[in-house]
This record gives sequence, structure tokens and C-alpha cells, in this order.
Amino acid sequence: MAAKVTIADVARLAGVSRQTVSNVLNSPEVVKEETRQRVLAAVETLGYRVSAAARQMRTGRSRLLAVRIETTEDGMNVFDRWLHGLTEAAERSGYRVLLYTATDDENEIDTIDRLRGEFEPDGYVLTSTHHDDPRTAWLAERDLPFVTFGRPWGATDVGHPWVDVDGAAGTEAATRHFLATGHRRIGFIGWEPGSGVGDDRRAGWSRALSAEGLDTDLDLATDGTLTQGRAAALELTGRGATALVCVSDAVALGALQVTRDVVGFDDTPVAAAVGLSSLGQPLAEVAARCVEMLTGRLSGRPTESHALLSPTLVIRKDPRS
Amino acid sequence: MAAKVTIADVARLAGVSRQTVSNVLNSPEVVKEETRQRVLAAVETLGYRVSAAARQMRTGRSRLLAVRIETTEDGMNVFDRWLHGLTEAAERSGYRVLLYTATDDENEIDTIDRLRGEFEPDGYVLTSTHHDDPRTAWLAERDLPFVTFGRPWGATDVGHPWVDVDGAAGTEAATRHFLATGHRRIGFIGWEPGSGVGDDRRAGWSRALSAEGLDTDLDLATDGTLTQGRAAALELTGRGATALVCVSDAVALGALQVTRDVVGFDDTPVAAAVGLSSLGQPLAEVAARCVEMLTGRLSGRPTESHALLSPTLVIRKDPRS
Repeated sequence: MAAKVTIADVARLAGVSRQTVSNVLNSPEVVKEETRQRVLAAVETLGYRVSAAARQMRTGRSRLLAVRIETTEDGMNVFDRWLHGLTEAAERSGYRVLLYTATDDENEIDTIDRLRGEFEPDGYVLTSTHHDDPRTAWLAERDLPFVTFGRPWGATDVGHPWVDVDGAAGTEAATRHFLATGHRRIGFIGWEPGSGVGDDRRAGWSRALSAEGLDTDLDLATDGTLTQGRAAALELTGRGATALVCVSDAVALGALQVTRDVVGFDDTPVAAAVGLSSLGQPLAEVAARCVEMLTGRLSGRPTESHALLSPTLVIRKDPRS
Repeated sequence: MAAKVTIADVARLAGVSRQTVSNVLNSPEVVKEETRQRVLAAVETLGYRVSAAARQMRTGRSRLLAVRIETTEDGMNVFDRWLHGLTEAAERSGYRVLLYTATDDENEIDTIDRLRGEFEPDGYVLTSTHHDDPRTAWLAERDLPFVTFGRPWGATDVGHPWVDVDGAAGTEAATRHFLATGHRRIGFIGWEPGSGVGDDRRAGWSRALSAEGLDTDLDLATDGTLTQGRAAALELTGRGATALVCVSDAVALGALQVTRDVVGFDDTPVAAAVGLSSLGQPLAEVAARCVEMLTGRLSGRPTESHALLSPTLVIRKDPRS
């Protein structure tokens, strides 16, 4: 076995100082691109390797971003596509994703507290923010770097960076699509009032109708299941609705059994498979922006404080027609 | 801030040696349960924390298991449910899951080689094993601990631990279900021959028919899409098939547009949503066995060499009938 390659060997071959090699490996953003390429070429040529443990002891940086893996029982969830994007974006920035599970907010806080003592992640990416979310205040109090996929709903805003998708803009676009194709009685099938995400999606539908001077009385709340989505669609069409905007693909699938003029939310694989129109979230972009904001903060780079991205309306025809 | 709690403080409170405390933290399986509980209580009481970096420098163990996150473009894939189970099982054994992405086998090998030098995972969990898979031989040559979700198909068997689901047993059960309900002309819609998983699923269907002395001529290969699944179903029913066993839920969804008597494979959320019968994989169990075999090997515990688990036939009625 060859003698162990040192940082001094890399510096010598690249014709730079040891500090510069260290910067390339630990804070690449402070090094000029041309120098960075030369150092990386020397690292490659010599087969130099930095142990993460040794680097962490030296720099206090683990190069780990911790993320909770959510359960996707009904498969209507977009989490796994987002997580894939997050892992790719983190890798491009020299970070790896460390997974953890949690049963609720308090359990997640305990888990983060334990991870902080053990693996010392450099940052945290939280998902599914909601009203009275205790997690963001807890992280902010301890000055732990984090970003959320989901805006701070209401009082829990502690000024942290966040990325979210503009649900209201999406349902507004869906409603306008139906208006443009001649519909006047357009219903909304939502969740029980009180959820940030659900209320936001209802607001866009309501805004589009009000702008045309139309009533917003065709509005029903459900528990989010296909069964209740179908029941709500039966009631709304019975009251004269000719088109339905839905808070999720799950309820939209139920509505689709009643009428073809339905738009869901999330553009899940189920929607694509059965020909359901839906609103797609730009998940790779959301993931990339989360990583950019978090790693920017970690390396002292100026970054946006938040980003609200637009969903895309995907109109599908009945595959059987 | 209080003085830092040391391992000696924990040993004193628990009334054990420092070596025993270290064993509890690093090799819990060598410590008696009663002692382990006493040490953990002392750790809890004193708020003792082990930095992963410090532990890794001392023990050479990172407590990380590395897993590639697969893309699930069509959402017909069961990967995210399995990954959730893996993360939970790893946590119960004191490990965390580190994610990476890869574009193909060679890229995955390069990535593992890089991870090995950087984060030094204690073990690797590989998915989607296939014929002529170069990854398992590469890992075995370097004596890196790993387990695969997927059996070693053919020549690449290097005697590594694996967990898999018995696809042939599943399609055999589906075919017997149709035989028991009076069908005699039962077709199979598969993938092109040559894939380990696909050929295995075809074999179970063929076995069930041959056992009854029935022909196995109603067999078509597809590219795995819904469109080709539908075309294959039209052709097979045209040739007299009254029921269809399918290699995946994706092709089964196409077949479902032609006849109700269809069984898919993987019991995806799409199947549940549209009322498609399917074969479900015991993913939490697969994940738990993967972790058990890998961490067993890591701590020198005797474990099974492999496990072949049975899928479950889920029969659904048309939700609209």
C-alpha cells in the first residue's frame, strides 16, 4: 500500500498553499473557480481523501443536512420526488442528506436534539410547516441553521428562510381555466378550514370567482379521502356545479367518478395514470432552492430570505375517450 | 453552561467501568440488558452526549448506512415505503441512513468509493440487483459490508446477504385465484425476457397453469407502459383470455381498461385508488431484515444468509360497481 497522501502533497502538485487546498475542500465558495479546478485535479491525480470524521474534528462541519422522511401511506404525497431533488442538490454543494423519522412535532424536536449531539448536522430541512408549529421557534432559539419547505403559517414566523409553492395561484389558474371554457358554476372541494395549505388553496378559487362577480357558495370541506371527495362532488353537482377544483388529487379522484371536469392538486402518479388534470409542484426547483438558501447561510453567502414558486396546471383528457 | 459531562461521570453514576459505558455506546450487543439500561439511565440523567465525529475517530465506526435514493418517475415504484422502513429499522439499531444518488451502476460504484473515503459508512444497502450487476462483486472484493434488497441474479453471486420477495410465489397465487374462480384461459403480460424480476414473475404464472395441465401460450412481453399493457390485454382477450396476471401495476392499469379480471404487482397507491387487485410486497419486513442482516454482520452476530419473503394477494372489487 502506498504512503498516505497528505494535504501538503496536494498543495505542492497544484502549486497552491495548504490553506487554499483546505478552502477548496471545506469552503469551496471562497476559492476562484480556476484554482478550485486545479486543486481538484491534484486531489484526483493523487487519490487524496479527506475523512469526514477528521474534517469534522478540524472544522466543526459535518457536511450533513438532516431531513425527516415522511410517511407516504396513501402515495398521494410528493415527498419522495422532493427528497430525490434535495439529495441531488445537496451533493452538488458538497453535502449529504442524513435521514431521520419522527412521529410528531415534539418527537421531531427530540430527534433533532439527539442528532445535534451525535452527528452534528450542519443544517436541517423541515417539511410540512403548519399553524402553531413548535419546531421553527425551537431551532431559531438555538440558532441552528435551517430552511423549511412550507411558509411560516401565522404566529410561528421567526424570520427563517423558506421555500413554498403558491397554492392559491394554482387553484386560481385552474378556476380561470374553467371560466375560459365557459363554466360559471365552479365548486371547490377542500379540507376542513384551519390548515394553512388548505385555506390557501381555497383562497385562489374564491379570488378567481369573485373577480368575475360570481358566487363562492359551492364550497365543501372533507376529511381528504376519495370517498368524501366523491360525496362532495355528488352534492355540488346536485347544486348546479359543472366543474370542480380540488384541494388534492385524493379528493379529486373521488370527484372524477362524478364528473370529468375536475382539477386536482399535486399532479401525483395516480393523476397521470387515470388522466386526471392537476396542479404540479416544481419539486426539483423547491429542493434546489432549499439547499441553496441553507448552504448559502452556512457559508455566509447572501441568499434570498424566501421563495414562493408557482405550480403548473396540467390539463389531461380522458385516456379512454 | 455546565462543565462537559464525561464518560467517567457516566461510569461513576452507573457503577460500571468506563469500558462498559463505551461498550453500551458502541457495541450494545455485548452488554447485558440490565447493565445497558442502567448505563442508558445514567447517560439520560447526566445529559451525556457522544459526538459522532469523536466516536468515529476513536472506534472507526460511523454508525451510518448508505443507501441510494432511486428515482420514482412513474410513481409505480415501492422505493419510498421501503426507505421509510429502512430508516426506522436503522434507528432502532442505533444507525442512521445516509442518502446518495447515482445515474447507473458504474456511477454508483464511484459514489460508494467516494463516500467510503469521506463519510466512511459502516455498511451499504443496495437495491435493484440484476443480471451482470457489477456492484456486488466490487463491494465484496473490498470486503465492504453490505446487503441487497434483491437476490443475486445468476453469475454475480458472491455469497452476500440478501433479502427479496418471492415474485413467482405471488403470480402463482394470483393464477390459482383465477383458476379457483373458474377461469381456464389465463394470460400473462410481462416485460421483455432477460430481467431477473420479470422472468421470475412469469415463472409463477406458468407453473400454476402447467400444474393443471393447461397451456401457457397466452404470454406477451411489453415495455412496461400502461399503453402497451392495454394493447397486450386487447390481443390476449382476443385470443380467448378471460383473466390476466401482470408483471406490474403499470401494465395492469392498461389491462384494466380492457377487462376487470386483472391482477397487478406491487400494490401501489394507484392500484388502491382505482380498485385494481395486486400483489403487495412486505416492505417494512424487507427493510427490517436488511438492517438486521447488515448490522448483525457489523457486530459479529450470527445472522441468516438471506431471506425470501412472500407477497400478499390483495383482491379488490370495482369501486364503481
